[in-house]
Amino acid sequence: MTEKGGVPVARAVLQQCLRARLQVKPAEGQSEAEFVQIDRGMVIYICFFKGATDDILPKMVSTLLNVRLCESDSGKLVSVLELPGSLLIVPQATLGGKAKGRAMQYHNNIGKEDGLRLYGTFVSLCERELAAAAGSGAEVTVKHGTYGNRQVLKLDTNGPYTHLMEF
Amino acid sequence: MTEKGGVPVARAVLQQCLRARLQVKPAEGQSEAEFVQIDRGMVIYICFFKGATDDILPKMVSTLLNVRLCESDSGKLVSVLELPGSLLIVPQATLGGKAKGRAMQYHNNIGKEDGLRLYGTFVSLCERELAAAAGSGAEVTVKHGTYGNRQVLKLDTNGPYTHLMEF
Repeated sequence: MTEKGGVPVARAVLQQCLRARLQVKPAEGQSEAEFVQIDRGMVIYICFFKGATDDILPKMVSTLLNVRLCESDSGKLVSVLELPGSLLIVPQATLGGKAKGRAMQYHNNIGKEDGLRLYGTFVSLCERELAAAAGSGAEVTVKHGTYGNRQVLKLDTNGPYTHLMEF
Repeated sequence: MTEKGGVPVARAVLQQCLRARLQVKPAEGQSEAEFVQIDRGMVIYICFFKGATDDILPKMVSTLLNVRLCESDSGKLVSVLELPGSLLIVPQATLGGKAKGRAMQYHNNIGKEDGLRLYGTFVSLCERELAAAAGSGAEVTVKHGTYGNRQVLKLDTNGPYTHLMEF
């Protein structure tokens, strides 16, 4: 259930990181695998369900980036925008899984085309928010995985503080 | 909501790993920090809510350890018991968070004493199931964090395949 009690159309799992590295292109033939990396900040695993539309994205991004769940150097809880920290956004279709017997089913996940569009817009909105908040000085960045790829991930944390948020 | 539609009393986030390392004792004075580590297997982040009792644990452990969400060498989906893989169990109170405005609240989390007991039993049941399934040959193990500690974690995956399960 979402905070408002409705049926969720998106699910996000958030983890704090000191460093996170994600493969965005697997090795193929002679070309090596490609990676993106962030230092301190937040990993957002994201999955959209059937019924999700672009309308939900601004509120969703604003909530995720403004909720206070990052620990500042002084131990105070601040948002990732206030930290300021970087973002690694990871499309994670498995988050939509529901167990049926011993198998996981993903019937409620959004179709590929809509998922790709929503994910792209979600990333763009995060980039815009982070750029606006960070100003020109801070060295923070938004990196993201490729929708549909295997999300090969390496994570280093000082406590992941795993949170779940549904929208 | 749980698979059965009731109000959940426990939440688990599952991630597949190639290697995972967790601090179980922070450095203090002259003594160095202590860590536990698993190789291939599954990380279970676990949080109990108010109303959780020991009754739910056997079903919960059986479900988590028998659901097919690990990729075998041949690419087939198998359970962590079938893999066989190791388990790293991480108490993660933040999973019970609910946003209120910009702050996260944890009012629904179980009290410390009950949480500690449930977590301990959960770990014991996992150890028993894994030992029974693995036999004497396989080098798999159950490692776990210390309830109430900061969960300093390092994770290396070939795709975390993050799943959420509620009970």
